[in-house]
Amino acid sequence: MGVSLKDVAVRAGVSVKTVSNVVNDYPHVSPATRERVRRAVDELGYRPNATARRLRTGRSGIIALAVPELGNPYFADLATAVIDAAAHHGRTVLLDHTAGLRAEEALVSQGFRSHLIEGLILSPIRLEAEDLLRRPARPPLVLLGEREYDAPFDHIAIDNVAAARLAVRHLIGLGRRRIAFVGARRDSRRQPAHLRLRGWREEILAAGGTPREELVAATDGYDRLDGAVAMTRLLDLPEPPDAVFAYNDLVALGALRVLAERGVRVPEEVAVVGFDDIEEGAYGAVTLTSVAPDKAAIARLAVDCLVARIEAAPDRPPARPRRILPGHALVVRESTVGRAAHR
Amino acid sequence: MGVSLKDVAVRAGVSVKTVSNVVNDYPHVSPATRERVRRAVDELGYRPNATARRLRTGRSGIIALAVPELGNPYFADLATAVIDAAAHHGRTVLLDHTAGLRAEEALVSQGFRSHLIEGLILSPIRLEAEDLLRRPARPPLVLLGEREYDAPFDHIAIDNVAAARLAVRHLIGLGRRRIAFVGARRDSRRQPAHLRLRGWREEILAAGGTPREELVAATDGYDRLDGAVAMTRLLDLPEPPDAVFAYNDLVALGALRVLAERGVRVPEEVAVVGFDDIEEGAYGAVTLTSVAPDKAAIARLAVDCLVARIEAAPDRPPARPRRILPGHALVVRESTVGRAAHR
Repeated sequence: MGVSLKDVAVRAGVSVKTVSNVVNDYPHVSPATRERVRRAVDELGYRPNATARRLRTGRSGIIALAVPELGNPYFADLATAVIDAAAHHGRTVLLDHTAGLRAEEALVSQGFRSHLIEGLILSPIRLEAEDLLRRPARPPLVLLGEREYDAPFDHIAIDNVAAARLAVRHLIGLGRRRIAFVGARRDSRRQPAHLRLRGWREEILAAGGTPREELVAATDGYDRLDGAVAMTRLLDLPEPPDAVFAYNDLVALGALRVLAERGVRVPEEVAVVGFDDIEEGAYGAVTLTSVAPDKAAIARLAVDCLVARIEAAPDRPPARPRRILPGHALVVRESTVGRAAHR
Repeated sequence: MGVSLKDVAVRAGVSVKTVSNVVNDYPHVSPATRERVRRAVDELGYRPNATARRLRTGRSGIIALAVPELGNPYFADLATAVIDAAAHHGRTVLLDHTAGLRAEEALVSQGFRSHLIEGLILSPIRLEAEDLLRRPARPPLVLLGEREYDAPFDHIAIDNVAAARLAVRHLIGLGRRRIAFVGARRDSRRQPAHLRLRGWREEILAAGGTPREELVAATDGYDRLDGAVAMTRLLDLPEPPDAVFAYNDLVALGALRVLAERGVRVPEEVAVVGFDDIEEGAYGAVTLTSVAPDKAAIARLAVDCLVARIEAAPDRPPARPRRILPGHALVVRESTVGRAAHR
């Protein structure tokens, strides 16, 4: 059943040696040839033989990806993208589910199963810098997501403040003046949402407005139910909001459900913006405007960084940790501009 | 950071030896004690030390789970449940993404990476029996899902015909007479949807009706877009359906979006039932009635079966392959009974 190097070479119109060079990321292959081989690899579904590689290099060919929740489509999308990116490097992915618990995140980050994995990509929620400073340098670790740590590890995350400001600017441009933020953490000291909340605050101030603290809705988590509970509370305020910027799409979708139940018109009475651009947002009765992080770029950059560290010569000093900012965009849909305008 | 056996023992009020017996699934522990220890394990987030176990038993402690798409929340839910069930057996899960491609499914099933994994749980889409008959007996394999194979492997799947009949019976009970099936495969010979389609047919016949072939909508896949495209076609029929039974929730949600766009009232003009009971269905502007497979039971039974085979004495003849039918239920929501009735 398997596709061989030879099959790829025939499809790409190059030698087996060239395919091998591309697959193993050796230099001295032109970008055009590299691209042709990559395309043939994709089309044929070729996976480099992990066993052979492992025997040759003494490496397992496995990298771990630890995410807080697979039930959030954002992380399912991200996991799928990481699996794809890893396959390009001949690696397979061991998926870890931390449930966003500090103990689990610390266990994973500290090299649990380090006999098995070549490296780890971790998207932490409650991990603290002290947990990271305790960990050994190997296997290499790449961090994803909004939490910023003063720790010497590569970190790949979009500019969350700028992305949040983009979303709030869109709402202000639509004439909204009472913009709620849904999805602040109750424990404000350890606030994964603090960058997006900061962006909300900064943009309102920049527009000459006043960020109203009664419109900041704290939630226990970031799920649909959290958004529904918070939206109910906001609608019961003496002066309800005329717009909602939600920490993520799931929270926004929970808010949209409550707005539909209460017969509140979206976007006429309340406009809603989410964050993550999960596919579900494109299919509701009212489709959801959302900040779209470039998930494919996040996954590719994370795997590239990790593989570079895995394959670095052990006798050279390690490269300095990098902070990489993949792109983001605002995807405008019906929840802010309505159906007619959207078409 | 790690939680020790001792911590679990103190919390459960039993000896370390007893905890060890439970964690290692040894017999001679009373069900009550076992339950108490399990609860303490859950509460403390204890994970048996995989490395120690591996060294002791020569086993990797890793099982693989291969699913066709992580982007479908059903498989994300299932993966989360399998990870939980595997943790109870001190195993971690290597997640494989086959994209529903026969070549990928065959590669995975034939023991790709068998040096790494103790066993495999596979949810195939396009795999054929001949692919399975070629595979070696080890590592053990457990199959999930709707495809039935004449091959000697454990198979865990709900009774899809009965579940489909339950959904269609509900629609007939609501007085619907033109019930469409959305999500048949174009290639009818290799039809993962054939059991649910058969249930649709059988139940309509049992009620004295006529299954109308023009109301069977084939789709290329099982995603929201497939449901949207098919629903558009069905609404353009001279006599459109008054109900839709969709192959899965994503297809149903795509259909609901088109109904909202066209201003068709749900359920008054068209009632909709999905399959999978993903959380998204509980949060739309019109919530989705759906067949709910018992995902936790599917995951638990799959892992239990697999671990039993992994740990079977090699000198005994293998146990006969088992066909296990976990339960299912119909979750009735607004898309069939409306908002008032549902409350």
